Amino acid sequence: MHGLHLIAELYDCRCDPPLLGDARALQELCLAVCSTPGLTPVGLLFHQFGSALQAAGATGVVVLAESHLAVHTWPEEKAVTLDLYVCNFSQDNSSAARVACQRLIAAFAPSRLLQRELERGVPALAAAALSGGGSD
Amino acid sequence: MHGLHLIAELYDCRCDPPLLGDARALQELCLAVCSTPGLTPVGLLFHQFGSALQAAGATGVVVLAESHLAVHTWPEEKAVTLDLYVCNFSQDNSSAARVACQRLIAAFAPSRLLQRELERGVPALAAAALSGGGSD
Repeated sequence: MHGLHLIAELYDCRCDPPLLGDARALQELCLAVCSTPGLTPVGLLFHQFGSALQAAGATGVVVLAESHLAVHTWPEEKAVTLDLYVCNFSQDNSSAARVACQRLIAAFAPSRLLQRELERGVPALAAAALSGGGSD
Repeated sequence: MHGLHLIAELYDCRCDPPLLGDARALQELCLAVCSTPGLTPVGLLFHQFGSALQAAGATGVVVLAESHLAVHTWPEEKAVTLDLYVCNFSQDNSSAARVACQRLIAAFAPSRLLQRELERGVPALAAAALSGGGSD
């Protein structure tokens, strides 16, 4: 489960509007970007909010053998959030993930950008869980 | 797009083994947890790695109107990663997300746990993007 989680928030995207509003266009981009060595799509789900004509946004998830890509668009704000998490079970897929994330960012062409990276699955960072797993 | 992203890594989970190995059991749990005010499932995708009998793990995503839940299991390590991202477009869904995340954690019953929270969609944190969006 050890791996890398890339997180990005994109603002004032200058891409063609369908990429922000049309789930089919978003799916085409995401699948193209995930068709790279180190990323292995095993399923996908894209949801259209409103309609492509009304541009109420879209959400897409590509389930990877290495974990997942999730993309949410807000056309009214020309904004996008990206999450790309790859585990490094059999090999280090970090470079593939970074390349894919940069390809997505380039496609949306944001004017402003926030990128964060989280290392996932580092057992040494975990603390003892509360009894019952912290239910409330 | 402003919202809260809850991230958790669970180790030495003491739940029944099917919850870690069987995509159907995982789906049942995730849908139950997401059936709460503040979370609105609009689609789901669960993938079985190997077979339920061989317990090679499962990945599940529930696409929410508020963003998404993603769960990955590693039965051989009795480990789970959770991501629950909710945007607060029309109302603050942070409390609903925290309750759902704690219900998931309680169901997996980890012995050790790492939880992190990220605030998403804070434009003031974004910097000017490189020309072309940072393509490489």
